[in-house]
Amino acid sequence: MAGKRKTGSTRRGAGKADAGTRTGTRRIWFFGDGRAEGRAAMKDLLGGKGANLAEMARLGLPVPPGFTIGTSVCREYWDEGRRLPDALWRDVVKSVRRVERILGGTFGAGPAPLLVSVRSGAAISMPGMMETVLNVGLNAETREALAKRTGNARMAHDSHRRLIQMFARVVLDLDIREFEQALDSLKARKGVFDDTELTAEDLANLIETYREIFAARAGMPFPEDPWEQLRMAIEAVFRSWNCDRAIRYRELNKIHGLIGTAVNVQAMVFGNMGDTSATGVCFTRDPSTGRNVFYGEFLRNAQGEDVVAGIRTPQPIARMKRVLPEPYAALVRAKDQLERHYGDVQDLEFTVQEGRLFMLQTRTGKRTAEAAVRIAVEMFEEGRLGKRDALMRVDPHVLDQLLHPTFDRKAPRRVLARGLPASPGAASGRIVFTTEDAEEWAARGEPVILCRDETSPEDIGGMHAARGILTSRGGMTSHAAVVARGMGKCCVAGCSATVIDVHEKALRADGQNLGEGDWISLDGSTGEVMLGQVPTVRPKLSKHFKTLMSWADEVRRLGVRANAETPHDAKVARGFGAEGIGLCRTEHMFFDEARITLVREMILAEGADARANALARLLPMQQRDFEQILTAMKGLPVTVRLLDPPLHEFVPLTRETQRATALAIGTSAAAVKRRVEALREMNPMMGHRGCRLGISYPEIYDMQVRAIARAAVRCAKRKIDVRPEIMIPLVGHVNELSTLEERARRIVEETFAAAGVKVPYLIGTMIEIPRAALTADEIAAHAEFFSFGTNDLTQLTFGFSRDDVNAFLPDYLEQKVLPVDPFQSLDQNGVGQLVEMAIRKGRSARKKLKIGICGEHGGDPESVDFCHRAGMDYVSCSPFRVPIARLAAAQAAITARRKKR
Amino acid sequence: MAGKRKTGSTRRGAGKADAGTRTGTRRIWFFGDGRAEGRAAMKDLLGGKGANLAEMARLGLPVPPGFTIGTSVCREYWDEGRRLPDALWRDVVKSVRRVERILGGTFGAGPAPLLVSVRSGAAISMPGMMETVLNVGLNAETREALAKRTGNARMAHDSHRRLIQMFARVVLDLDIREFEQALDSLKARKGVFDDTELTAEDLANLIETYREIFAARAGMPFPEDPWEQLRMAIEAVFRSWNCDRAIRYRELNKIHGLIGTAVNVQAMVFGNMGDTSATGVCFTRDPSTGRNVFYGEFLRNAQGEDVVAGIRTPQPIARMKRVLPEPYAALVRAKDQLERHYGDVQDLEFTVQEGRLFMLQTRTGKRTAEAAVRIAVEMFEEGRLGKRDALMRVDPHVLDQLLHPTFDRKAPRRVLARGLPASPGAASGRIVFTTEDAEEWAARGEPVILCRDETSPEDIGGMHAARGILTSRGGMTSHAAVVARGMGKCCVAGCSATVIDVHEKALRADGQNLGEGDWISLDGSTGEVMLGQVPTVRPKLSKHFKTLMSWADEVRRLGVRANAETPHDAKVARGFGAEGIGLCRTEHMFFDEARITLVREMILAEGADARANALARLLPMQQRDFEQILTAMKGLPVTVRLLDPPLHEFVPLTRETQRATALAIGTSAAAVKRRVEALREMNPMMGHRGCRLGISYPEIYDMQVRAIARAAVRCAKRKIDVRPEIMIPLVGHVNELSTLEERARRIVEETFAAAGVKVPYLIGTMIEIPRAALTADEIAAHAEFFSFGTNDLTQLTFGFSRDDVNAFLPDYLEQKVLPVDPFQSLDQNGVGQLVEMAIRKGRSARKKLKIGICGEHGGDPESVDFCHRAGMDYVSCSPFRVPIARLAAAQAAITARRKKR
Repeated sequence: MAGKRKTGSTRRGAGKADAGTRTGTRRIWFFGDGRAEGRAAMKDLLGGKGANLAEMARLGLPVPPGFTIGTSVCREYWDEGRRLPDALWRDVVKSVRRVERILGGTFGAGPAPLLVSVRSGAAISMPGMMETVLNVGLNAETREALAKRTGNARMAHDSHRRLIQMFARVVLDLDIREFEQALDSLKARKGVFDDTELTAEDLANLIETYREIFAARAGMPFPEDPWEQLRMAIEAVFRSWNCDRAIRYRELNKIHGLIGTAVNVQAMVFGNMGDTSATGVCFTRDPSTGRNVFYGEFLRNAQGEDVVAGIRTPQPIARMKRVLPEPYAALVRAKDQLERHYGDVQDLEFTVQEGRLFMLQTRTGKRTAEAAVRIAVEMFEEGRLGKRDALMRVDPHVLDQLLHPTFDRKAPRRVLARGLPASPGAASGRIVFTTEDAEEWAARGEPVILCRDETSPEDIGGMHAARGILTSRGGMTSHAAVVARGMGKCCVAGCSATVIDVHEKALRADGQNLGEGDWISLDGSTGEVMLGQVPTVRPKLSKHFKTLMSWADEVRRLGVRANAETPHDAKVARGFGAEGIGLCRTEHMFFDEARITLVREMILAEGADARANALARLLPMQQRDFEQILTAMKGLPVTVRLLDPPLHEFVPLTRETQRATALAIGTSAAAVKRRVEALREMNPMMGHRGCRLGISYPEIYDMQVRAIARAAVRCAKRKIDVRPEIMIPLVGHVNELSTLEERARRIVEETFAAAGVKVPYLIGTMIEIPRAALTADEIAAHAEFFSFGTNDLTQLTFGFSRDDVNAFLPDYLEQKVLPVDPFQSLDQNGVGQLVEMAIRKGRSARKKLKIGICGEHGGDPESVDFCHRAGMDYVSCSPFRVPIARLAAAQAAITARRKKR
Repeated sequence: MAGKRKTGSTRRGAGKADAGTRTGTRRIWFFGDGRAEGRAAMKDLLGGKGANLAEMARLGLPVPPGFTIGTSVCREYWDEGRRLPDALWRDVVKSVRRVERILGGTFGAGPAPLLVSVRSGAAISMPGMMETVLNVGLNAETREALAKRTGNARMAHDSHRRLIQMFARVVLDLDIREFEQALDSLKARKGVFDDTELTAEDLANLIETYREIFAARAGMPFPEDPWEQLRMAIEAVFRSWNCDRAIRYRELNKIHGLIGTAVNVQAMVFGNMGDTSATGVCFTRDPSTGRNVFYGEFLRNAQGEDVVAGIRTPQPIARMKRVLPEPYAALVRAKDQLERHYGDVQDLEFTVQEGRLFMLQTRTGKRTAEAAVRIAVEMFEEGRLGKRDALMRVDPHVLDQLLHPTFDRKAPRRVLARGLPASPGAASGRIVFTTEDAEEWAARGEPVILCRDETSPEDIGGMHAARGILTSRGGMTSHAAVVARGMGKCCVAGCSATVIDVHEKALRADGQNLGEGDWISLDGSTGEVMLGQVPTVRPKLSKHFKTLMSWADEVRRLGVRANAETPHDAKVARGFGAEGIGLCRTEHMFFDEARITLVREMILAEGADARANALARLLPMQQRDFEQILTAMKGLPVTVRLLDPPLHEFVPLTRETQRATALAIGTSAAAVKRRVEALREMNPMMGHRGCRLGISYPEIYDMQVRAIARAAVRCAKRKIDVRPEIMIPLVGHVNELSTLEERARRIVEETFAAAGVKVPYLIGTMIEIPRAALTADEIAAHAEFFSFGTNDLTQLTFGFSRDDVNAFLPDYLEQKVLPVDPFQSLDQNGVGQLVEMAIRKGRSARKKLKIGICGEHGGDPESVDFCHRAGMDYVSCSPFRVPIARLAAAQAAITARRKKR
């Protein structure tokens, strides 16, 4: 690449710096004074940092001058038995001379001594692996020169001290505890607390101590020769590339194919050279609100570390205009140029050294969700970004902050424990332990958090009454989690770090003993359980948000539906832009307090007659549910899933409730207990549920299908356009579906015929069993649509019980055995193969098969991207994630289009 | 087809019978008198029965003459609005005339009245769907002629009575209860118990009553005209093809593509026309022992139904030589010809009418396992079969009978209940309910059956002491089932029809109340629980068996290994011809009474140190295990699976055992209880087990790998050739395997280096997680072998928990939602796809990848056939199934070779 580039020979001074051209291999790339030999695209050779410094310099920005030794030299260093190539040093010296000329200083001598930093930087960023030596060039002589020139002897001495320590650690790999002990004992002797309270003289003495320690530990004196310092620092960076820690890091992070690290040698500049000097940090726009104002802080006569130490308070950037007008004007030009160049908000670091501005770093500015949206929209309106680029600028994940009530980020919080983030939201309330207490306290207007070891259908009333639910047992698909998500209620489940003793009405966590009435707060999005009341905020949706969403809708191909089972949720979802319901779980309706007894009667019935009786009484209730939800979603499709969970999720578990149930349905408590025990399963996730119930107890599905059909008829008679889609869950073999589909279709047709009404409807299935994906062609012959239930599909494809995965998944993520939690983001490599296979086979058998996803992945941006590429028709997610999915779908469409080109 | 055949015009009398040739479509195929117009290959047109009758006639055998109306006529009948084709009747009449000529009788007239049977018969056998009308041609006149001719008025009258009733049911679809009531009331009036006690006169009266009932129900008199009888019967057969019951049957059995049923009209012959007549049943060889002797019985002057009625005792077939020498000689000729023709033992029915032999039916003879083996071997030795054909003659399934002790088939048995066939074998013993009682009674020399609701590690001692184990809860992979199979002990698990009250020492089943000391018997192969002591038999392996097995070994390509974890099992497996161990489960060794406390200490350890301590003490024990088993299998590979089950399978569950454990390991009972509860899982099948334990607690796998390596070293030093293969279970992601494989390899190499010994070994993985199959190429990069764990793979691919599947699988099989239990026979369509994919991808990444199966399917013949086709290297199954797998592998090779040609 270097050979093809125009060499610097036509440029000023380039003849002296075009190192390596004589041998045909360039080893050093110079930057500074408004130009550079490298550029952003040369990351492989210059490393990330070197390429960025070059890019800034090429833009004409005042970067402190310096040069990058290419990654290929690292390879040479190792190939030649840890020896720097002969030609390199000549070029290094020449490059340092060039830096001297630009800045008008001298490396290793006064009166204006030049100091440099030496930093590693590979093509891929490896946080924590970066080796840095600052202040290279300091020795007794240059230190005094620096002290004189800056009028700040303390600073000069402190820099020298730091160099010795840093050099010892980075270059010679020494244990630095002795240096720290020497510093501590000095401070103790002087009776001071902070380093900054030490005088220049104290530090001069300390330097002597450091020299002694260094010599004793290293077996050599600290090198006084700055060139020797520089050479050793460069070699140390190359050596660091193959230290155990770095090799382990690259292995762990699966970083392959790099040839080595580059070395950046750059002039150090000082913001503490008097009142014409300063240092600061700024953003091109307000990163908190997104407003287009120059935003930041600066500190006169200071170095960056002074800002960090927090001893002096920085001033708003606008004040700099008055006190340092010229550097300020240059800074404003620079920030405008950088924002335009990168097309995004930049986070800048700068130093003014004696009235001269130096840009130290620029990077994309982190921002709040609110700011991200506003910036993207306004940058389009300003003509700085195309609409597609603006859409790509906002990370869909962050929208979560805008949609859910969240805890005030500024409020202090004391985290007691962390459980599973089972149902998102933020809630504060007073602890109660029973459903009765929850209802009673709530009736008095008290906000309560229901705390249980685990919940059962008896707790439904209490869960309704509570602001949030905390359980110490059970997983993401436990009763508490499923019901809470259904209710849209905040829930932290399986929080095993808390001990909940319902009997004693006591909750213990992190050494705290809490009881009934004490305040706690739950964050259902992070799983955090916090002490006391943490204030929440509910952000409003801005006009910028609406604009961005409307653009997303223009661009995306994927439909976006919501998972919802109540008219309220359906309305929320519509408000967020849902284009239908992709998953309406009918069992939620079964858990309703008023019905659970009837449901239990149905389950505990001895024989088909008694069961039919209970079902006949459930029918009108389910019909009413469906009528309401179909009405709420008029004009849009509603996918209703027939009963899915195993029957034992509905039965009474305690002796009292068993007795009460027995009384209610006219049998003995012993009979109830017997039946409950017979229903118990070893692995309920893979047990008697879904369509397996439909095969064993056809009358249950018959009732549900009849209720849907009758609800559709009632709506049609009221001239409401409804589009029910009946979904048969857990199909693994075509015969399951063909049997149940035929039966359902007969019931629907009979109902329509009896009413003299016809409503368009579909019958389809969930693809959530691996075998269904493998035989999707057979299954598609009987299904008008597929909806991927990727929660269960992930469980079965991995063989991971979601309820139990917490025992080992944290280890897996920490040890990087898995890159991400496959329940959060779809495993495209494994589960994705089954999804793609099912789509291909399904469409081969039925060209117009409608295909969507209704697992929780439907709201995960990476998974949405996969769904787009896989050719699905829609994704469905919880109502609050609908905007996230809309944006993610737009980004997926844009990305796919760009890849095609 | 008919058009191309040579018509019968050149044959004797054929000119009169070549029905349909004038229109170019043959509708009727004649057979009899040593020739036939059809043949065996014409099943589609003649139906199975018609084709077989034709084939027998073609062989020159004396079949009662008759003709088959083709299936195409059935189609015509329905296409033309349920009308027989005009031309058909003329041909029927001609064919009946031809039958008359051959037998010298007259249809519908005396003195020698011809009677015929009319039977349906489609191309695919549909048991229970067959329509038959016998004795067509009888009326008042012919009945008397028949009575006179046979000298048996009672027989003639009874035949007439039966015709009326059969005609009413089959032809007119009438309810026949009134006929039966009339017969019953006649018997009551006459004070007789059996039909045969009624006189000819009684029956004549009954016929009049029947006529009246018939006329009243049918709205028409019973047809006296034999031709009318015949026409109506033929139409009835065609009509029956599309009755609801037949349509449902074909749907349920997925019988498609048939055009209709054929109709067989055949002369009836009578073995009860005096002493020159007879009837009998025989086999070409002894179906019980397989000896090559003519075997069967006959009865003079009798019809087949007399044999069935059991009033007269039949005589051995050899006696027939003396009393009916000519028919006997003809019969011997026929049986020789038939056995030669079909190349297999035949089960024959014959009738001698007035000295003339008629062959009524021939079919492949059912036989015992012992006979099957002997017949196949001897028929090869006699030159009647090739070796490959001989191998194909024995159904591998039946070998089970020869290998396991079984209950005496002749002994009476009273089945109390049926549970899961968890571990094969047959055992009788006295009921005990606790492990202490089991040990105590067994020490006294009493055979005992341990009966528990479920077992836990505390019961190991009792299980050892017992002859068999019965549990009322738990599935095929419950503790009881797993441990019993490991011990090779008979076990019936999950027998929910029994109520076992351990506290009360009571067992209730099928109305019986049993207690301690009462005798029961368990059949672990069928799941039957029987009252009392049922005698068992243990068959010896014959020389024929050994011969057959040696042929199988010559022919098969697949290797056959055994699943075994004790030296004893390993030796048994070698004795049965196993070529290695495909699955040695290390956890069985953990369950051992002496070690369980150490294992518990390891599990309950707080922190890695305590765990390491317990593991260090387990190491020499495991090493000894491995040394013994490797020695027992010297020269052959032994695949050792590292720890697989979740840790909670090992922990103490009762308060007493928790207290004892706490005492033993020096902690509190509360701490033990807490840890046990923390280990509890919702879905243990998909929980913290297999390689997930290896990732979380690397020290456990380290200990096991070290034990294997040290055992190998010890053997090598004793000059024993051992070939350990280390198998890492439950891998779903390549990173799991790469992490553990690397670690294991390091330990093995270190151990070998320290000992200065090298032993060949492999490290590989089980493919039992769908994701592993989907990403087998990635996984093969780190695995030297794959072993398909098809039990778990089936569970996860179907989403069926094997422990819970009993709640719905019986429904599925009964309703034919699934054709077979996928845990018995590999689901080739679904699970098989994953297996094939994994083999393809695995070999694409590693050409020499060794591939086998170690799920229970490895002993199922159909699954073995699949494994052969899929290109596996070996199958592994329980020791007692090794011969089955050897034979199945040979058959698979033969079948594949034949298909290729």
